[in-house]
This record gives sequence, structure tokens and C-alpha cells, in this order.
Amino acid sequence: MNAEILAVGSEMLTPDKVDTNSLYLTQHLNTLGIEVVAKAVIGDDRARLTDAIRDSWAHSQLVILTGGLGPTEDDVTRDAAAAALSLGMSENATAWDAILARFEKFGRTPTVNNRRQTLILDGAVMLPNPNGTAPGQWLARDDRVLVLLPGPPRELKPMVQAEILPRLAAMLPPLVIRTRWYRVALMGESDLDQLIAPVYSKYTNPATTILAAAGDIDIHLRARCETPEEAEALLAEVGDPIAALIGDKIYSTNGDAMEVVVGKLLREKGRTVAVAESLTGGMIGQQITSIPGSSDYFKGGFLTYTDEMKTQLLGVPEGTSAVSEEAALAMARGALVRTGADYALSATGYADSDQAGLVYIGLATREHVHARRLKLSGDRHRVRTLAVLNALDWLRRALLS
Amino acid sequence: MNAEILAVGSEMLTPDKVDTNSLYLTQHLNTLGIEVVAKAVIGDDRARLTDAIRDSWAHSQLVILTGGLGPTEDDVTRDAAAAALSLGMSENATAWDAILARFEKFGRTPTVNNRRQTLILDGAVMLPNPNGTAPGQWLARDDRVLVLLPGPPRELKPMVQAEILPRLAAMLPPLVIRTRWYRVALMGESDLDQLIAPVYSKYTNPATTILAAAGDIDIHLRARCETPEEAEALLAEVGDPIAALIGDKIYSTNGDAMEVVVGKLLREKGRTVAVAESLTGGMIGQQITSIPGSSDYFKGGFLTYTDEMKTQLLGVPEGTSAVSEEAALAMARGALVRTGADYALSATGYADSDQAGLVYIGLATREHVHARRLKLSGDRHRVRTLAVLNALDWLRRALLS
Repeated sequence: MNAEILAVGSEMLTPDKVDTNSLYLTQHLNTLGIEVVAKAVIGDDRARLTDAIRDSWAHSQLVILTGGLGPTEDDVTRDAAAAALSLGMSENATAWDAILARFEKFGRTPTVNNRRQTLILDGAVMLPNPNGTAPGQWLARDDRVLVLLPGPPRELKPMVQAEILPRLAAMLPPLVIRTRWYRVALMGESDLDQLIAPVYSKYTNPATTILAAAGDIDIHLRARCETPEEAEALLAEVGDPIAALIGDKIYSTNGDAMEVVVGKLLREKGRTVAVAESLTGGMIGQQITSIPGSSDYFKGGFLTYTDEMKTQLLGVPEGTSAVSEEAALAMARGALVRTGADYALSATGYADSDQAGLVYIGLATREHVHARRLKLSGDRHRVRTLAVLNALDWLRRALLS
Repeated sequence: MNAEILAVGSEMLTPDKVDTNSLYLTQHLNTLGIEVVAKAVIGDDRARLTDAIRDSWAHSQLVILTGGLGPTEDDVTRDAAAAALSLGMSENATAWDAILARFEKFGRTPTVNNRRQTLILDGAVMLPNPNGTAPGQWLARDDRVLVLLPGPPRELKPMVQAEILPRLAAMLPPLVIRTRWYRVALMGESDLDQLIAPVYSKYTNPATTILAAAGDIDIHLRARCETPEEAEALLAEVGDPIAALIGDKIYSTNGDAMEVVVGKLLREKGRTVAVAESLTGGMIGQQITSIPGSSDYFKGGFLTYTDEMKTQLLGVPEGTSAVSEEAALAMARGALVRTGADYALSATGYADSDQAGLVYIGLATREHVHARRLKLSGDRHRVRTLAVLNALDWLRRALLS
């Protein structure tokens, strides 16, 4: 079953507002195996909303409208839903009684406008709202479902739990969902896709999603079957060849970030790390120490942003070019010796200027010190982010070997 | 002029993703006086997207599509736009040259798939993308405009600034818009609002928006008038009393981030800074060096995450409690002396554990060294972020005094 969510209200179209109801709904629908394939925020415009509902109704089996159920002229959801599906509406006596009771409780009297809130689409079930005046609506028609929910989260959430999820669960076949997750470092998205598309593109089950951030790519596989065994078998059928193709560029299979993976390896092997940062100015240290308990394996480090500091704090020989293999080697060696750590990472390079993206990273251990030349692309932030990821990935591989 | 924004990509339909591009676009469109009346996120489904575009095109004069311009089969935006408006497409030689040049720069070869990215709608202008392979498109037709933008914010934002906003501004009636921007450090959002709401709430023009992030609050005033004089007078009428109420907690009036403000002050006064970081593990250095040219005033620093490193690298007396005023003082002093900088900032504290949020920051100058005790709230990331902001704001005030 596919779903679309339409949030109604001009107030959600400002630069600082997010429709959080759709995130809440998506989470709960996904748990039932229902995919959200589109969502929208529509202002208080009856004609615009009518077209949007008509589109969603044509494309998806479940259409959920949130908001726009208030008592004023601006509250267009009921009218637009009736127009889109060519349905009549009539006042619901139970809903009106609930409104009367609610107003009485707070010592107030409903206005004539509140009567609008009791208009229920022909054929729909009225859903009581214990936390507000607007009742919800559930309309099942031709194997499709239209749902109207109040906008305030404290009214919507209880209604979703009490009225919507149980009704949806009753409509669905009892399917099992199993997932796999591969997190890949330092591959281009199109390179990766070209590599693995021949495997996954033959399958709609499991569904494959590829998400890319700077230097990081997540591959999600999600199988939906009648039994757990069937789902696991499908995941293995698609996932195992994908994992074999990507190899050790996969650094996590549970969603752990690189700094978490590296932290766990350091802790597991009882090793410590130090850093010597020029280009990255503290970003490697900051990332390693973003994990609680990192003081167990992070010794410390040096931010050497000038030639003078590289020489003075880390013993980089005077006259060494600040961005060079020699500098990266000497920085890593200097940090290792001065902190007594088991490993030391270094990074130096250009984040802007003509030579932007030219980066050297170093890795020192008790036995060896190596440096690598990288050519990274993007703006200052991206170059620094990729330098950090390259350095941490190098340490990860060293810890594994 | 009314606008609709369609974000394309199934990855934005998960419970934890928000389409931030639409927020960015809304902010800039609003500044031009363009209202966003609907927005949607549509999965990678060509037919669904085609209907959505058709709807938006029928209802609004400006339709902006973001994402789905990649090189793969999944990238359906171009095809759907062509189908919705019944237009052909053809390969653009300039766009292909740009892709070739980009790949060559990074020593890679484009795949045949990348050719798809050069398909431009008949009648559209190709918008160059200096930060990625997907060009944008601008199609003006029958008083309406369709815009195609790449999805990654680091590609989209420069294109909006360079190509979209100027073209839109040229289409609009000459209503003058003037803005003021106050950026405030280290005040609670509700405290601030309580302080200034009596001033701004009486006015709809200028419009006032308050945006809060961890420790930072932005106040935007936007006046729309027939003449610049009128607009400036309105801004003064509302802005001056607001600025007077907040005082020197306002650190920027042009949107500069704290690290930019501090960097400009250091450069202006010809001073340098160093850091000694425990709790923040490199975050202060990373933030200072996120600004191009920061090597002019950032000397370097020390990440001293263990007691041993504090003593060995910074001369903190043995036996000093790692989280104490004494430690913050000795760390700042140690960094100043060892780097020869004019100022040194230090930070030590607890980000989790029972005492989470207890933080000491230090500031050393050639004459003095001071420390402050902070009690911060929130999770590990927030405590560290607020510690950095407190330290940088302290340096800002020292540079101003």
C-alpha cells in the first residue's frame, strides 16, 4: 500500500516551519509496511487543495489530509475533499454533541461556525477527537482510503494511535519486514550505482534505497515477506553480492558513523590515537571526541596552522613546505612521539586558493609513518570534511589489518 | 507572484528527513515579495511527478523543482518536466563540456549516463553549476517560469544566488524591500521574545521573523514600501528600540556567524588567537578555521583530552582537577605562552555523566588570564556547541573593549 500526506495551512509555508505531522505519520506508516510516496503542504486555497487531493487519490491507495478542519472560512479541507471526490456532506449529531460538551466543560458557547466542523463526507466514519473540537474522518471507497485528521499534533497523534493505525493494520496482509544497511566511505554515488545496479535493479523486493552525503553513501535494503526466513533469504540474495562488490569500502552495517566505528575498534584493541591538524583545524579531533567515552582512546593533539607552529610544536623541519608529503609525515610522527599514542593522524592542505583540494594526510604507528596525497573537490567545508573522512577511514583500515 | 516548490527524491520521504531546500528558497522568495503557496516532496516516480508539475504549473506563476537531476534512471525530473509541459529536450554542448572539464579536473571519466544531465528543455536557459555535474534550467513561458535546480544544498544555494534571484527580481514590480538582521548570542528564545514582542507585535510591516538555533537567535525585520526612505524609516521605528533592549548581546547585524565576527575583529586589530581544548576536542579550532584566510590570525592549539596531556603539553600542574577553574586558567596560559598568540581560549568540562553541563572556559591575554564557570544544558553536542559559542563570544567582547 502506498500513501500520500497533504498538510493544509498557509502557516506551514514560512521559512522556519516544518510539517512535523508528516514525519510522525511516515514513521508509523513505514512500520506497517506502508510507503509514503509523496507529501505536500498546501495553503488555505480550496481550488488548489481540491486538485492536489484529486491527484493523490488517483495515484495512491491511502491519502491522509492533516489540518484545515477548524471552524472558519479559511478551513478548506472538508470542502476540498468533498469536491475532489464529488461527495456530499451532512452534519453529524454525535460530533455536535461532543462540541457542545467540550464548550460546556470550559464554560463557553460554540459559535454557529463550529457547526461546520460536524460536516462529515457521505460514507465516511466520524472519528471522535477527545483533545479538540474537530472530529477526524475515515472514508474507505473502491479499495482506497481517505483520512482527514486535525492539524495540532496533540490532537492528531492520539487519533492516529486510537483510530487510524488499527484500521490500517486490519486491512494489510500480515507481512514481515527485514532490513540491511551498508554504509560506504569515499566512493562517488554514480560509480557505486553503476557497480551495484546490475544486482539490485532486478528486484523490487527487497526495495533498495541509496542515500548520499559528502563522501558517505548509505545503501538500505528492505524485504517484505510472509515469513522472517523468506525475508532474510531475499536480503542475502541481493545483499551478499552487493557487499562482495563493494568490499572493505563498507565500513558499517548498522548505521554507525565513521567516528563511532573507529572508536569501537580503538577501544576493542586497547589502542589510542592523537592528531596533528593543519587544514582541518580541529575537525578530526572534534569528530573523534563527539562520541561519549572517547577519552578512553583519544590522547589529544596539535592544531598547527602556521609553519612556525608546525616546527615549534611538532618538530617539522624548518623549510619544509607546509603542504607536502614531508609535512604530513613529520606532523604525524611529531604528534605520536609527543603524546605517546599508538596511532597519530595528520592533515595538511589547501581548502581554497588555486590549489584547493590538494591535501596530504599522514598516519604514524609505533613502527611506520606513511603519507598520502589526495585531490579533493568542492568548497572549503567539503574539502575539510572529505579530508577528515579519508584520515579516519585510513585509521579504520590500519586497525583492521 | 505565487510560487510552488517541488522537491524530488524518495530519500526525503523517510521519517527523519526534511526538505531544507524549500525552507531556504522560501526565505529568499519571501524577501522578493513572492509567496510560496504550496510545496511537495515527490518520490522518484515519473508519472506521479508529471501530474504534480502539471498541477503546480496550472495554479502558480513560478514552479521550482529541486533534485532528481542526477545521471541515473532514478533521476526523473527532466523527463517529468518535459512530459508535463509537452516539451522536447536536447543535449546541450556547453553543459557537456563543463562535465568533461569537471571530471578531468578530478582525474575521472564521465559515464554515458552523465550525458542525460545535459538534456535541456526546449526554450529553457541552461544554468551552469560550478559545484556539481547537473546544470540547472530556467524556462520562461506564457508569463510563467519553471526552474530546475540540483538537489544538494551546496550546488543549489550558489545557483539560486547567481542565477535565480536576479532573474526573478528583474520580473517584479519595483516595490522596495529593506531588511534588518540582528543575530543574538546566548539568550533563550522565549526570554528574548518576551523582551521584544511588545515592540514588534504592533506592526505587520515590517514583518518580524525570529529563528532560533542552539544558543543563537536571528531576528529578521522586512519592510516593503514604495520608497527606500519609507522602508528605512519603518525599520528604524521598529528596529532601533529592539536593538536598544537587547544591547551588546547582538553580535552581528549582517548575518555573519560568530566565527566570522571574531575573525574580522582579530584581523582588524592585527591580533592572533590560540586554543587549548579538552571538552570541545577541536571544535573551537575547527570553527575558527572554517573561515577562508583564518591562517592570518589563528596560530594553532592543543587538544588535551587527558590529565597527562594537559600537564605535558600545556604545563597544567599535576594534581589539578581536569574540570576546574585552575585547569581552565592553566590551559589558556599554557597555550598563550607556547604559541606566542595574543589571546588564548580554553575549555574543559563534562558533556555527559552526572555533572554534564559543568564547563569552565578560560581567556588569556598578555596581561591577564580569567576563567568562567558555566552550567549548560542539553545533550553532548549541545553542551559542546554552547561552550564554543560562550568562548568565542567572550573573545569578541575582549576584542571590543
